[in-house]
Amino acid sequence: MAEVITRREGAVATVVFSNPVRFNALTLDMWRAIPNVLAKLDEDHAVRVIVLTGEGDRAFVSGADISQFEQNRATAEAQELYTKALEYAYLAPSRCSKPVIAKIRGICMGGGLGLAAGCDIRLCADDAVFRMPAARMGLAYGYVGMQRFMNLMGPANTADIFFSARKFDAREALRLGFVQQVWPSAGLDREVKAYCDVLADNAPLTLAAAKRAIVEAQKDADERNRTLVEAADLACYASADFEEGRRAFMEKRPPRFQGR
Amino acid sequence: MAEVITRREGAVATVVFSNPVRFNALTLDMWRAIPNVLAKLDEDHAVRVIVLTGEGDRAFVSGADISQFEQNRATAEAQELYTKALEYAYLAPSRCSKPVIAKIRGICMGGGLGLAAGCDIRLCADDAVFRMPAARMGLAYGYVGMQRFMNLMGPANTADIFFSARKFDAREALRLGFVQQVWPSAGLDREVKAYCDVLADNAPLTLAAAKRAIVEAQKDADERNRTLVEAADLACYASADFEEGRRAFMEKRPPRFQGR
Amino acid sequence: MAEVITRREGAVATVVFSNPVRFNALTLDMWRAIPNVLAKLDEDHAVRVIVLTGEGDRAFVSGADISQFEQNRATAEAQELYTKALEYAYLAPSRCSKPVIAKIRGICMGGGLGLAAGCDIRLCADDAVFRMPAARMGLAYGYVGMQRFMNLMGPANTADIFFSARKFDAREALRLGFVQQVWPSAGLDREVKAYCDVLADNAPLTLAAAKRAIVEAQKDADERNRTLVEAADLACYASADFEEGRRAFMEKRPPRFQGR
Repeated sequence: MAEVITRREGAVATVVFSNPVRFNALTLDMWRAIPNVLAKLDEDHAVRVIVLTGEGDRAFVSGADISQFEQNRATAEAQELYTKALEYAYLAPSRCSKPVIAKIRGICMGGGLGLAAGCDIRLCADDAVFRMPAARMGLAYGYVGMQRFMNLMGPANTADIFFSARKFDAREALRLGFVQQVWPSAGLDREVKAYCDVLADNAPLTLAAAKRAIVEAQKDADERNRTLVEAADLACYASADFEEGRRAFMEKRPPRFQGR
Repeated sequence: MAEVITRREGAVATVVFSNPVRFNALTLDMWRAIPNVLAKLDEDHAVRVIVLTGEGDRAFVSGADISQFEQNRATAEAQELYTKALEYAYLAPSRCSKPVIAKIRGICMGGGLGLAAGCDIRLCADDAVFRMPAARMGLAYGYVGMQRFMNLMGPANTADIFFSARKFDAREALRLGFVQQVWPSAGLDREVKAYCDVLADNAPLTLAAAKRAIVEAQKDADERNRTLVEAADLACYASADFEEGRRAFMEKRPPRFQGR
Repeated sequence: MAEVITRREGAVATVVFSNPVRFNALTLDMWRAIPNVLAKLDEDHAVRVIVLTGEGDRAFVSGADISQFEQNRATAEAQELYTKALEYAYLAPSRCSKPVIAKIRGICMGGGLGLAAGCDIRLCADDAVFRMPAARMGLAYGYVGMQRFMNLMGPANTADIFFSARKFDAREALRLGFVQQVWPSAGLDREVKAYCDVLADNAPLTLAAAKRAIVEAQKDADERNRTLVEAADLACYASADFEEGRRAFMEKRPPRFQGR
């Protein structure tokens, strides 16, 4: 069965893409579910960090489910609707106020690569394999998506990845700046959990303000909402957590942040 | 003799800078030839990938031909005309709709470094040596050129390279993001040929759309032509190649793209 | 005693942050001194390169002096004034026309990391340790500062560093693009001196023009002063140094630049 599953462990919510017989390829319904699933987790005050990952140990997301290919991509019009559904999914992580992290093992290709690129941070196992096969399909990728890759790896590496449609491994993804950390596959769960627990203990309003600045700074100046950035900054200074951070520091104890 | 030579092998055209006694330094005539040579190859439907390289195994391009120095750079006015000719050459690769790749061995300095920076992708041998000596000459480099280096390696690495005028090797060029791949010198021809053959087999309209997005995204918002990007995307979806890509994928065979 | 000390050696001026009992934490007076100290060195024609560093071998700058914490950061208003003083200090290096280089050993955290990020180039010892602890304090970091980190290491690495507040070492700082060179601690003084001597021998007007272009290119288009960039370029071509660079090159001798 192909589905998007949400799991919770403390303040960390994990969104699992599950389509095991197809290396977690995403059906159109799964693409469409992503924005809603993330929006709900973003509203849930108990959630501080959101992780996107694939079911099992063979794949993050292998791309679009090819069994739906004929149906969803047979015409330019169908392809455009399909592309729009994907683009909403790609944008969903940046619309969350909380950190959204891609946890990647095995295959991460096509739409899976685009979805990973939409997250704030990518953490992967040393067995991860990446690929953008659009040039093998005759597809256009869209300006916004290209820009997202360029922000992460620059124009020349983006050209290399898109023009060649070649595979690249975890080590190269790290060099390109596409992933932030690589760990041995056997330790990935433990390492990502430790990483997310650190984020969950940090001041939620600081994380929200930092994310807001990072998201807005990637926009063109005339589309950038500096008011939101300033509001997020002021929310930090007006918060009980700002007081708690200062006190904990003076008292040399770990802070206990409430997100308000 | 100093000349710009074009060689063809299948769908890959190679533009060779040849001035062997001067490590392929470019004369003013050679600089001026570059935009026309590239424009013609871009119009030739049989060409899918353009490679720029130096004659022989000692240099890509060592810079401007110093025997013309007194003549072309003696006054600020002459220098400005000279600089403009170089700037047109630097811009020429980005004005092609097809991938333009710099294949680099040995010396790649000054104007040669600028020309390489103007290409979409840089592939080099492990014996490549890079340098931007403007600060040893008292020259200004120009805003557009500086921006091109900043897009590839960021502001701090650009400052390092320009302020120090120091040499850097292939390994460091890879770390800086200036080159995309480094191969042993003995295997460079074979590796670059294999790389270009992959690009030549991919969908030309997808490559053109990706390149258009990459080129436009590097411009300021008010100089950016989003209409061209969208037209290039629509051309993909309206193409026979889009149909061929989908069919080949369903039939599990390699696609045969026509560029239309 | 906590103070900002200026030392001179030839054309290289070194600004030393000295607060040894607190790992060179900066007091409010020290933060406020930075813009003036740098502006004076920038006006001094005998100075060609400015280095910022910490006293001793244990720290660059560990951050804000915590003994002043209660006094300067107890309220949102006090915090805002404090933040403004820091922001002026962060901007000071980019307001100099000369290269400003951070020379980093040991601890480089919080405000120290921000100050290093404000410099043109960062050179560090292999014992350097970096950290941005804002998320452990409940602080907002401010849009301009975030943008500076994003320009150096991209949006995803910036998110990683700010969200996690984790330490990172010299090797990782190099991979992230935050530092430009790493040397063994024992050789740092010698290496940085050699590096700065190279810069001091290069054409000052070329360095000023390159820096102006790099600084302006990082601004939004509507805040960018292209007139200043062009004026700096023209100053190169109108200079005696432009003539000297050309002559020295023809005569195969090292140039002797005067900065005019």
